[in-house]
Amino acid sequence: MLRLFPVKRVVQKSFKPTTRFSIRAITTSATMSVPYKQAAHKLTMIPGPIEFSDAVLGAMATPSQAHTSPEFVATFQSVLKNLRKVFKSTDPKAQPYVLAGSGTLGWDIVGANLISPGDKVLVLATGFFSDSFAEALKIYGAEVDVITAPVGDVVPLEEISKKLESTKYTAITITHVDTSTSVVSDVKAVSELVKKVAPETLIVVDGVCSIGVEDLEFDAWGIDYALTASQKAIGVPAGLSISFASERAVAKALDRKESVFFASLKRWTPIMKAYESGSGAYFATPAVQTITALKVSLDEILSESLDERFAKHEQVSTKFKTDLEKFGLKIVPVNHKVAAHGLTAVYFPEGINGPDLLAKLAAKGYTVAGGIHKALVGKYFRVGHMGYSVYAGHVDTLTKALEESLTELKK
Amino acid sequence: MLRLFPVKRVVQKSFKPTTRFSIRAITTSATMSVPYKQAAHKLTMIPGPIEFSDAVLGAMATPSQAHTSPEFVATFQSVLKNLRKVFKSTDPKAQPYVLAGSGTLGWDIVGANLISPGDKVLVLATGFFSDSFAEALKIYGAEVDVITAPVGDVVPLEEISKKLESTKYTAITITHVDTSTSVVSDVKAVSELVKKVAPETLIVVDGVCSIGVEDLEFDAWGIDYALTASQKAIGVPAGLSISFASERAVAKALDRKESVFFASLKRWTPIMKAYESGSGAYFATPAVQTITALKVSLDEILSESLDERFAKHEQVSTKFKTDLEKFGLKIVPVNHKVAAHGLTAVYFPEGINGPDLLAKLAAKGYTVAGGIHKALVGKYFRVGHMGYSVYAGHVDTLTKALEESLTELKK
Repeated sequence: MLRLFPVKRVVQKSFKPTTRFSIRAITTSATMSVPYKQAAHKLTMIPGPIEFSDAVLGAMATPSQAHTSPEFVATFQSVLKNLRKVFKSTDPKAQPYVLAGSGTLGWDIVGANLISPGDKVLVLATGFFSDSFAEALKIYGAEVDVITAPVGDVVPLEEISKKLESTKYTAITITHVDTSTSVVSDVKAVSELVKKVAPETLIVVDGVCSIGVEDLEFDAWGIDYALTASQKAIGVPAGLSISFASERAVAKALDRKESVFFASLKRWTPIMKAYESGSGAYFATPAVQTITALKVSLDEILSESLDERFAKHEQVSTKFKTDLEKFGLKIVPVNHKVAAHGLTAVYFPEGINGPDLLAKLAAKGYTVAGGIHKALVGKYFRVGHMGYSVYAGHVDTLTKALEESLTELKK
Repeated sequence: MLRLFPVKRVVQKSFKPTTRFSIRAITTSATMSVPYKQAAHKLTMIPGPIEFSDAVLGAMATPSQAHTSPEFVATFQSVLKNLRKVFKSTDPKAQPYVLAGSGTLGWDIVGANLISPGDKVLVLATGFFSDSFAEALKIYGAEVDVITAPVGDVVPLEEISKKLESTKYTAITITHVDTSTSVVSDVKAVSELVKKVAPETLIVVDGVCSIGVEDLEFDAWGIDYALTASQKAIGVPAGLSISFASERAVAKALDRKESVFFASLKRWTPIMKAYESGSGAYFATPAVQTITALKVSLDEILSESLDERFAKHEQVSTKFKTDLEKFGLKIVPVNHKVAAHGLTAVYFPEGINGPDLLAKLAAKGYTVAGGIHKALVGKYFRVGHMGYSVYAGHVDTLTKALEESLTELKK
C-alpha cells in the first residue's frame, strides 16, 4: 500500500501552545526554496478541524492570486475534477460545488435549493447533528418528520420503510456519521430501500464526518446531494462548504424560485462549470488560498486508491477502539458495526472525572473533544482520527498518552 | 508617521507564476524559527484579493487548532475587539460578526435579518455592485427603489431627500465604494440626511472596498450595518464576511422570524459575544486559519492610527491618479472628489487595445482587473491600491510598468 505521508512518530516530549507562526528552517542555503514544515504544536485530535499535512498548510500561505487568474483557474479546475473522484461519480451531469462557508451552510443549500416550503422531509436522526439538520430545514419551511434512533444506534430499516410507504417525502436526509455519537449509518442500505419504496424521494447525505473516510458511492447508490466541510476528512482548514449534486438535484435547484442569494445553486452552477472547464467566472469571490490547500489535499488523498484509504482508516479505528476497550472503556456506539472510522465517542470510565482526563491529555499535547449529545453531556468524550493523523502515527501516540493518563488518574 | 511594513521596492526583473508553495530560508540555523517570507510572484493589484503581508500569509499556515481551544479563543477575541476600533465604534451594544463566506454573504445577512418580506428599501446605485445588492434584497422579498447615479458620479443628495420624504423605507443602502466604477459615496452626508428626514430608516453600508481605506465612523455617523470581506482593504485572503451591526439592527435581527440558518444573526450573536468575552461557543465551525490571519492583519492596521492609514492611502491614490492623467489617461469617476482611494477605474487610452495593455502588464508581473460596468465593458480597467501594496511600494513600480507598457504599445 502506498504511503501518503512519511509515517513518523511525533513524540511530543514538550510543547508550548502558540498562535505565532514559525517554521523550522531545514536548509542552510539562504536562497533555496524549501517546503513548509509546521512547528511542533498541541495535536488537534477532535472530529474536525483535524491535523493538516505540511503541504496543505503551506498552500494556505500561497501568495495572492486573482480569483480569475490562470493560476487559480487551474487550481480550481483540478479541485472540481478531483472531487468527482472523491465522490466516486463519473456522471458528467452531476455537479460539485465549493463555496466559502462551513458544513452548516450545506444544510442551507438543501433548504434553499432542493426543497420548497411545505415539502415533506424525512430525517433519520442519530444524534445532535441530525437534529440540527432538521431544525435548519424547518426554517426553510420544510415539514419535517424525524425518526430518532436509540442513542448509539442507527434507525432500523423497517421504520424507514414504514414511513416511506405511508407518506410522500420530497427528500430523506441521512447523517452518514453523526459527529455527536460517532454512529455511522448504512447509507447504501437506506438508499436501496428508498429506490425500491419511494424512488422519487431525493436522497440527501450529510457526509461531514464521512466523506474521505467512509465509502460513499454517489452514482452507484443513487445519492442526490452529499455535503461536507473542508476541516474534516478532506484535510483542509475550515472555511469551505463542499458538496455534490445529482442531475435531478441540479435540475430541481435551477427550476426553483430563489429564496437566498449567496447559497443559491442557480448562481453557482454556471460558475463551477466555468472553472471546471478552465475559465474564470464571477459570482462571489472564492476563498483562493483555502481552495489551493484543497487542491493539495485532494492530490494527497487520491495518491492512493480511495478503498485503500478507507481500509487504512478502518484498521487504525478498529485498533484504537480495541485498545480503548482493553483499558476498560466503553464506546458510545452500541457495537463496532455502527461505529464510525473517522472518530470515536467513548464514555469516561467510572471513578474518573472527565475534565481531569481531558486536562491530562491536553498537558501531554493532545486536544480531544467533549461530548455534545444532550442525553450524554459530561459523560463521554470524542477523539478524531481522520486523514493526516492516521498516516502520521498520531493515533498511536495518543493511545499511549491516554493509557498513561488513565493510570495516573487511578493512582 | 509609523511605517507599517518595511518600505522596500520589489523590483520584479523576472518572475514565474507558481501555485507551488515555497519560502526562501533566511537563516542558516537548522532549528531556529524564522518568519514566513513569500516567494516572488506576479503582484495581484486588482480591487481584491489584494496583496498580503508576509505575516498575514504566515498566519494562514498556522497549525491546526480546535475552534474552541484557548489559543483560538484568544485570537478570535482579539479580532472582535479590534474590529470595534476599525469601525470606530465604542458602543458596547453594537456587534461585530465574522462568518466564513464572502462579501456577498453580507447582502444575504441584510436581506435575511434586517428587513422582512414586503419592506421597502432605497438603494443608491453607483455601479454593478449596488445593483447586485438590490437584486439580492429583492430575492429576500424587499420592495426595492433604486436611484441610479450617472456613470462615474454619485447620487445627488436632493434626489435621496425627495425619495425619503415621499416614502417610508425600512432601510437605505449605500455602496460606499462601488468596485465597478471606483466611485466613493459621501456616507457621512447621506447619513446626516437620513437622520434628519427619516431617522427610523436603517442605514446600511456596503463597505467592501472602503472599510480600512476610507473613513467610516460607525457610531458618529449613526450607521446601522456595515459589511466587508477579508480580501479587500482588511488585507486577508478571501473567505470571510466581516460586518458590524448597531444596537437597533441587532435588536431587529433578534426579533425577526428566521428565514435562513447559516446567515442568521440570531444564531451568531451569542457566539460572537462568547468569543469576545473569552470563551468558545459553537454554531458552525469558524475558519480558524483565516481568522488567525485576520488577527495579524488587524494588528498591522492598528499599529498606526486609522486616520494616518487613510491619509497614506489618499496620498498614494492621488499620486497614482495624477500620474495616470500625466500619461494622458482619464479616470472613470467624474472628478477626484468622488474617486475612491483604494482603487482606480481608468479608461483605456485611444488607439490602444485594452487586452494588449493588460497582457503587457501581466508580462511585467502585475495583474490588474478588467472593467465590469455593463455600460463600459471593454472600455476601462481597474487597479487596486489597498493595504500592503500601498506600504510596500507596489503602486510606484506598477506606475512605472504602466508607463513603459503605454510607450511600448504606442511604438
